[in-house]
Amino acid sequence: MSDAPARPELTSGPEVVESIRTVLDGAWGDLRQRIRTELRPEQILGEPGQSITEQRARVRDQLLGLAEAGYGRIGFPAAYGGELDYGASCVAFEMQAYGDLSLLVKLGVQFGLFGGAVARLGTERHHQAYLADIMAGRLLGSFGMTEVGHGSNVQRLETTATYDAATGDLVIHTPTESAVKTYIGNAAQDARMAVIFAQLITDEGGHGVHAVLVPVRDEAGAALPGVTIGDNGVKAGLPGVDNGTFAFDQVRVPKANLLNAFGDIDDNGHYVSDIDNENRRFFTMLGTLVRGRVCVGGGSGSAAKKALAIAIRYGDQRRQFEAPGAEQEVVVLDYLAHQRKLLPRLAKSYALSLAQNVVTERLEELHGAGAARSGPSVDDAGRESLRTRPEEEGGERSASDQEAQRELETRVAGLKAVTTWHALDTIQTCREACGGAGYMAENQLGQMRADVDVFTTFEGDNTVLLQLVAKGLLTEYKEMWGDLDPAEMVGLVSKQVAEGVVERTTGRAGLQRLLDLAKGRDDDSALDDRGWQLSMFEQRADHVLETVGKRLRKATKDNAFQLFNAAQDHVLLAARTHIDRIVMEAFAEAVDDMPEGPARDLLDHVCSLYALASIEEDKAWFIEHGRLTTARSRAVTAQVNQLCGDLRPHAQALVDALGIPDGLITAPIAQRAGEAR
Amino acid sequence: MSDAPARPELTSGPEVVESIRTVLDGAWGDLRQRIRTELRPEQILGEPGQSITEQRARVRDQLLGLAEAGYGRIGFPAAYGGELDYGASCVAFEMQAYGDLSLLVKLGVQFGLFGGAVARLGTERHHQAYLADIMAGRLLGSFGMTEVGHGSNVQRLETTATYDAATGDLVIHTPTESAVKTYIGNAAQDARMAVIFAQLITDEGGHGVHAVLVPVRDEAGAALPGVTIGDNGVKAGLPGVDNGTFAFDQVRVPKANLLNAFGDIDDNGHYVSDIDNENRRFFTMLGTLVRGRVCVGGGSGSAAKKALAIAIRYGDQRRQFEAPGAEQEVVVLDYLAHQRKLLPRLAKSYALSLAQNVVTERLEELHGAGAARSGPSVDDAGRESLRTRPEEEGGERSASDQEAQRELETRVAGLKAVTTWHALDTIQTCREACGGAGYMAENQLGQMRADVDVFTTFEGDNTVLLQLVAKGLLTEYKEMWGDLDPAEMVGLVSKQVAEGVVERTTGRAGLQRLLDLAKGRDDDSALDDRGWQLSMFEQRADHVLETVGKRLRKATKDNAFQLFNAAQDHVLLAARTHIDRIVMEAFAEAVDDMPEGPARDLLDHVCSLYALASIEEDKAWFIEHGRLTTARSRAVTAQVNQLCGDLRPHAQALVDALGIPDGLITAPIAQRAGEAR
Repeated sequence: MSDAPARPELTSGPEVVESIRTVLDGAWGDLRQRIRTELRPEQILGEPGQSITEQRARVRDQLLGLAEAGYGRIGFPAAYGGELDYGASCVAFEMQAYGDLSLLVKLGVQFGLFGGAVARLGTERHHQAYLADIMAGRLLGSFGMTEVGHGSNVQRLETTATYDAATGDLVIHTPTESAVKTYIGNAAQDARMAVIFAQLITDEGGHGVHAVLVPVRDEAGAALPGVTIGDNGVKAGLPGVDNGTFAFDQVRVPKANLLNAFGDIDDNGHYVSDIDNENRRFFTMLGTLVRGRVCVGGGSGSAAKKALAIAIRYGDQRRQFEAPGAEQEVVVLDYLAHQRKLLPRLAKSYALSLAQNVVTERLEELHGAGAARSGPSVDDAGRESLRTRPEEEGGERSASDQEAQRELETRVAGLKAVTTWHALDTIQTCREACGGAGYMAENQLGQMRADVDVFTTFEGDNTVLLQLVAKGLLTEYKEMWGDLDPAEMVGLVSKQVAEGVVERTTGRAGLQRLLDLAKGRDDDSALDDRGWQLSMFEQRADHVLETVGKRLRKATKDNAFQLFNAAQDHVLLAARTHIDRIVMEAFAEAVDDMPEGPARDLLDHVCSLYALASIEEDKAWFIEHGRLTTARSRAVTAQVNQLCGDLRPHAQALVDALGIPDGLITAPIAQRAGEAR
Repeated sequence: MSDAPARPELTSGPEVVESIRTVLDGAWGDLRQRIRTELRPEQILGEPGQSITEQRARVRDQLLGLAEAGYGRIGFPAAYGGELDYGASCVAFEMQAYGDLSLLVKLGVQFGLFGGAVARLGTERHHQAYLADIMAGRLLGSFGMTEVGHGSNVQRLETTATYDAATGDLVIHTPTESAVKTYIGNAAQDARMAVIFAQLITDEGGHGVHAVLVPVRDEAGAALPGVTIGDNGVKAGLPGVDNGTFAFDQVRVPKANLLNAFGDIDDNGHYVSDIDNENRRFFTMLGTLVRGRVCVGGGSGSAAKKALAIAIRYGDQRRQFEAPGAEQEVVVLDYLAHQRKLLPRLAKSYALSLAQNVVTERLEELHGAGAARSGPSVDDAGRESLRTRPEEEGGERSASDQEAQRELETRVAGLKAVTTWHALDTIQTCREACGGAGYMAENQLGQMRADVDVFTTFEGDNTVLLQLVAKGLLTEYKEMWGDLDPAEMVGLVSKQVAEGVVERTTGRAGLQRLLDLAKGRDDDSALDDRGWQLSMFEQRADHVLETVGKRLRKATKDNAFQLFNAAQDHVLLAARTHIDRIVMEAFAEAVDDMPEGPARDLLDHVCSLYALASIEEDKAWFIEHGRLTTARSRAVTAQVNQLCGDLRPHAQALVDALGIPDGLITAPIAQRAGEAR
């Protein structure tokens, strides 16, 4: 079936597994290895069948246990007792995602969202007062952004924080039913304090959404006066997370509780900020919190990997139906249909994992301790960074800084969307591939699927995030910080799009060489030619972006919404194809970086499976746009089947290379042959 | 965008809604209407947040309540107190699926699987002894087929029922760990009796799998001697269903407990059956139980409709992001991306619902009281039936009977697979479309999704069912009853496939007329030309089946498994495209049957949306095979967008026409404007 030249015999012994695991582990391999060694399963695994009350208690206890063990300190400034760097906190999150996802989200709320907001939006006075307690789990908190009426369009939040010049207080208030904070993690049971996002108002008028630290419970756990706390109760998943509601009735806090890194009220009651434009100020604040989306993407990616580990181990043992003349029934993973379900998704998990490593490193470069930031400096661990060039010192960020930040946000948003959808689809497919056994709680897949579901809409609704990606690609930096309103985008499409798409990915020389080699050969390239594969992703992303740009440029003030809306599917496609390209490039680079040998040969096949299965999935587009002949399109399908067969003997090795601690895979159906069930 | 001629202005007033609802209601409209009027929400709704113990108790109580209200009698023979006909039981099941799905499955186990097996596999002695108690809920029972080692390949079940000539007993035994019955509904808590599928063995040898009535608990609920009952515990969904395990240690039951409609042990201890071939006998037994799959398909279809009702009602109220110049934010259902998520799935729900009506009517014709059956006659309500032609009287079934039964089984298997996957995908999409609110238990989507998940693998794993469909299409009737072993299929592909595919769908004159009109026009047809749409489905199904047939005919005894396995994706495609065609035909016929007028105009648009969205989803195939030019393929996408826009103002009316009782849609986000939340 294959039109490829003779290929190396694939092997997957322990040293191959080890080599591939090292590649997947990426820059923070030591931390991953430390967590694999140190973390005990009971510290992070859940228990099926517990009541909500029991789950919440268990998760809180586990969170406090992990804080005690020091995991809460990762990524916080060393000056206040933090350890390791910012990127490390994302990697720790990925590793913790092999445990119970309720616990993961609770950790994310406490250390990432709440702690992260205090660290990044607050200044020294907040750091001094709270960070040590937050890291130690002595002060549990919430991140109060979403309101009943506004989930995605957070610029329209209705909660108010009004400065009372007479007393120097900020008055936090919930003016309407739709202004009630809802789905807030840690709210229903544990938070004593919350970062509340609210419209900041002074005598001079409104200044847009800002974050304020608001105490919500006393030491005994009772709601403070003026604070009404509700319980969102049972959810579709995440039973151990105490999501709840906050409503405020003229609650007073000192002005000092304003998290003032980006805007403040001075001693004379005047609002002051380095960033004049209200929109831009708000999105700069949000951009500071981009780590949340990095973590959600990484965590969901881990859940997908764990599901694949379970389904592939089971599929490699479970037998059903006889082949003619055979005594034993066939191992189900020997069926093409079963391979088709699991192996392309395994390849995509590899791809997304490598792309996740890239954004984590970039996050560290731009937001880590080594990076200059317009917010407060944090500490001085001198990590090499793109951001330490001399012209970038100082308060306001330089244009290249801003461009880098915009590219990071775009990537992170898109990767979060693509990875969370992948996780949902993969866990579900794994559940079905395990039949009735997959439905039993002991085999873990059901809870994982239910838990990861909401990852597709929290920390940004995936569809809205893809629009954000498209906006990032279509507009100039200075326009990027406008309204998140999608219709607004229409007016903003820059000339450069029509004049040829600007190169925004970080393709390196190695990939360029492969691409150049592929050019001209076109349809003569072998399907496993990496350059040809890359060029397919590149051509599609460029073409879709260019055409959608031209289409949107026709907008006028009067037809803008209609025009945008009619093109919305095209806009979303531009975003998705851009992210697909970035993911493919990350995978290709990782393979390109490896020394020749059996590990590289094996990973090369996985990369081709990812590439060709992706092309196959969208082959209508490639044919419609003359990038694939119908004959070649059918050859792609044949080659995907071929690669499934080639990789099938190495499926368990590829699962082992994911580096999921064995003790965390407790599913009885996924125990290795010879192990006790 | 549209290349269609000027189309009628669509309207959707109450009379249009009523007309469309009547079409969707189909042959048992009166029963549906009666259930809508009579059934009180508290009789069938669940309660989020209950413990498993509470859920199980609530579901059992509700089941007993419904039995008391007479719902258990539907579809049982009048001679024993049953009422209405066999098809009616499927329709009642569809309506009950708008309530709690744990209750639905529990009802299905008790009245459908357990009661149905006694009615259909048993004979008068069993009917006399048990049916009245089963209908009244006085005797709760299980359907014990699945074992740890065998879910799909049920011919290889290991449990034995050995005839002891000395005592006249059957000895039921679980010889291995993998022979333990598992995932059995009603087992863990309630069943006092079980239909146990086991290898029947007499002194003469084995006779294949048969069903035996085995008491499992005493009146006080304690397991009987030799019976070990386990609890499957927590599952990914269906918390109110007490799934469990049975193991038997030489448990003796009288020979009379053998459900002997298809095979018996005579007074001399000899095995006797009208059907000599063991395989054929077993699959004839299973075929008798086809109603289970009809119900699972119908029930999951109802769940999808309810999810769409919730998401569309919410999407028509929820606002997010401003359009330029507008005061209020945009209603989210006005966004193309939101329409794209919900409206094609609504159209598909319509299509599947109409196809479901067709199989339900066919089930009644072939298995209802009016039909001659090789099993025991049941009663004599003289429903007109395909099966009452004179040559078909008597014991063994005629060839045309058998062909009709085979066609029914094929349709039902395929429709069950397609509908359950549709339900899972639709409920998930609806959840995401409702954002965080969709994740809250009060809004019902999470539990529905978790519950319906297992519908894709119980009552036949969907992938295995699609293979069964392909087998039905590719083989002669007499070969159909061979092993379910997929590899075996290879040797069986009949000549007729290679010589031109046999017409196996029931297309009527009206559709043929539309098809004929479309022929020759090809690419000149308007995209909303029904004949052209139908011909696309027809051409694809025929071509895929023909080519896979040719491919499989190359099999020899030695390469059969490899050949089959390499073609497995092709085989599954043949099944899916066949079912898609049947569904499209059902929709087209329903529209064709309607009188001219606004209701027909509206339904016609929904039908086009179903057709074009399906074609779009698979457009790579149509282009690859020369059935769609690339220009026309792009026009299909534009037309799907256009139809979404055309139907958007009528979305709520189309939801109303589904006829889901308002009282069962308790989700606060789905209350009509002006109603209390």
